Amino acid sequence: MNIKPLGDRVVIKKLEAETTTKSGIVLSGSAKEKPQEAEVMAVGPGAIHEGKRIDMEVKVGDKVLYSKYAGTEVKVGGEEYTILKQDDILAIVE
Amino acid sequence: MNIKPLGDRVVIKKLEAETTTKSGIVLSGSAKEKPQEAEVMAVGPGAIHEGKRIDMEVKVGDKVLYSKYAGTEVKVGGEEYTILKQDDILAIVE
Amino acid sequence: MNIKPLGDRVVIKKLEAETTTKSGIVLSGSAKEKPQEAEVMAVGPGAIHEGKRIDMEVKVGDKVLYSKYAGTEVKVGGEEYTILKQDDILAIVE
Amino acid sequence: MNIKPLGDRVVIKKLEAETTTKSGIVLSGSAKEKPQEAEVMAVGPGAIHEGKRIDMEVKVGDKVLYSKYAGTEVKVGGEEYTILKQDDILAIVE
Amino acid sequence: MNIKPLGDRVVIKKLEAETTTKSGIVLSGSAKEKPQEAEVMAVGPGAIHEGKRIDMEVKVGDKVLYSKYAGTEVKVGGEEYTILKQDDILAIVE
Amino acid sequence: MNIKPLGDRVVIKKLEAETTTKSGIVLSGSAKEKPQEAEVMAVGPGAIHEGKRIDMEVKVGDKVLYSKYAGTEVKVGGEEYTILKQDDILAIVE
Amino acid sequence: MNIKPLGDRVVIKKLEAETTTKSGIVLSGSAKEKPQEAEVMAVGPGAIHEGKRIDMEVKVGDKVLYSKYAGTEVKVGGEEYTILKQDDILAIVE
Repeated sequence: MNIKPLGDRVVIKKLEAETTTKSGIVLSGSAKEKPQEAEVMAVGPGAIHEGKRIDMEVKVGDKVLYSKYAGTEVKVGGEEYTILKQDDILAIVE
Repeated sequence: MNIKPLGDRVVIKKLEAETTTKSGIVLSGSAKEKPQEAEVMAVGPGAIHEGKRIDMEVKVGDKVLYSKYAGTEVKVGGEEYTILKQDDILAIVE
Repeated sequence: MNIKPLGDRVVIKKLEAETTTKSGIVLSGSAKEKPQEAEVMAVGPGAIHEGKRIDMEVKVGDKVLYSKYAGTEVKVGGEEYTILKQDDILAIVE
Repeated sequence: MNIKPLGDRVVIKKLEAETTTKSGIVLSGSAKEKPQEAEVMAVGPGAIHEGKRIDMEVKVGDKVLYSKYAGTEVKVGGEEYTILKQDDILAIVE
Repeated sequence: MNIKPLGDRVVIKKLEAETTTKSGIVLSGSAKEKPQEAEVMAVGPGAIHEGKRIDMEVKVGDKVLYSKYAGTEVKVGGEEYTILKQDDILAIVE
Repeated sequence: MNIKPLGDRVVIKKLEAETTTKSGIVLSGSAKEKPQEAEVMAVGPGAIHEGKRIDMEVKVGDKVLYSKYAGTEVKVGGEEYTILKQDDILAIVE
Repeated sequence: MNIKPLGDRVVIKKLEAETTTKSGIVLSGSAKEKPQEAEVMAVGPGAIHEGKRIDMEVKVGDKVLYSKYAGTEVKVGGEEYTILKQDDILAIVE
């Protein structure tokens, strides 16, 4: 992927719903919940506050939970990504 | 649980309504009030203000009261959690 | 009571309407006005601004007037309390 | 009166409409305009900015003009007062 | 006039529409536009930022253009004035 | 023109639509687009941030593009002008 | 092009939808998605924070993804451009 996010933005790719359920039960059809889990594909250089750049807290490869309606969906090279601000990432799932 | 919240976010797990009523009367059915009490499961590293990280005021295991509509509900490993900013936690119940 | 509010929050308990009328006339029924007077039950450690904690202006036991729609009502141990930010307290009644 | 406002709040008491018309004509009934003039009854210690308390610009006894819909009306000891932030006071009438 | 505005507020008095048209044509009836021109009657001491009082840019006697819906209209001594923040004054007409 | 804008405000005068189309084709009637191009007629002294006045980026005579709905239209001396904040000017057209 | 954006604004020109699909499939008609990809045509000098000008992160020639509804569309010299704040640019596509 060749998207370089600006500032404190992050490019993520939604993970399939199956991977978000770790209980071992494979859900299908309407039983699937809207996935809120994604993998970080690219990380911006960080926002600037008071003239200093703030280090980012996530890194490429992190599995993250994010606010369902956050960010902008873009399609690059036939693939769908979401670009959002790091502040819209709720947590890293380890 | 393996969720690591970012910034000043906290992962909480709602406590059953029975545990929120300490008068000894076990409520059931429609008499139960929507629980606003939860246990802290994970705590972020703290927000950064003016380049300094602010220590969090809650810690894992704290019983807390929180704003009913605050935060985002997520399902990880078959369990439901709420991820919210510490500022949406009203008080620690001791 | 065992509620420890966070930041600049305060736990208050509404006083009965009768106690808010000091003219000596006991009001009843629809003549009673919605009480806006409360007693402070617990006080948070204070908000942090620019890295310094700001001392609270109210203390436990103060009788206060507060904005009618401010805060969140919680029920702990069978008692109803309101948790609000100190900034929603208008004045101390002495 | 025994109300001690917090921060940069001020307790005022509306003046009767007759006193707001200084032209000598006594208005009555629907000709009266909603009074916007009031007397300052109590003054808070002042807001805190950047760790310093800012002195208040009004003092007890000042006649002031204020924004019609500003503040909260409270009834203490059978008397009606309005508690508002000093910033909602437009001017002192001398 | 005896109104002393607080902070960065200014007391202005609307000029008659005729005086706002300098082309020499006297407009009347519906042809008149809502006047936006006014004379400064009183000027507050200035707002406080970072603990320093900021000097005001307008002075008594200035003819100013202001945002049509800005400010609060008050009637003092039978005369109508508008009290607004200096920031709602667009320009001085010389 | 004798309008002196305050703070970081700028007085502009809309250019006729014909002058905004530089392709040499003279548009007329409904084919004309709402002009967004204007000439700067007067420039304020600049806003004050942190006690320092910030220099303005536009100067009298600049041709500028501005946000269609920004600013306030005023009529002075029979001429129509728009007074807006410099931040509502998008670009200088050279 | 002769547009010089102010502050932290950027002038971009939308790329045709065909160029945004890099999978080699040429889309046409209703299958085309609204393009969100653009080329940077001009870059402002940067915003001023705390008296210091912040360097811009994009440069002329960069291909960028931007928020679909951000910015203002302008027509200069018969060509359509969008002027937006750099913060509305999501990422650089390399």
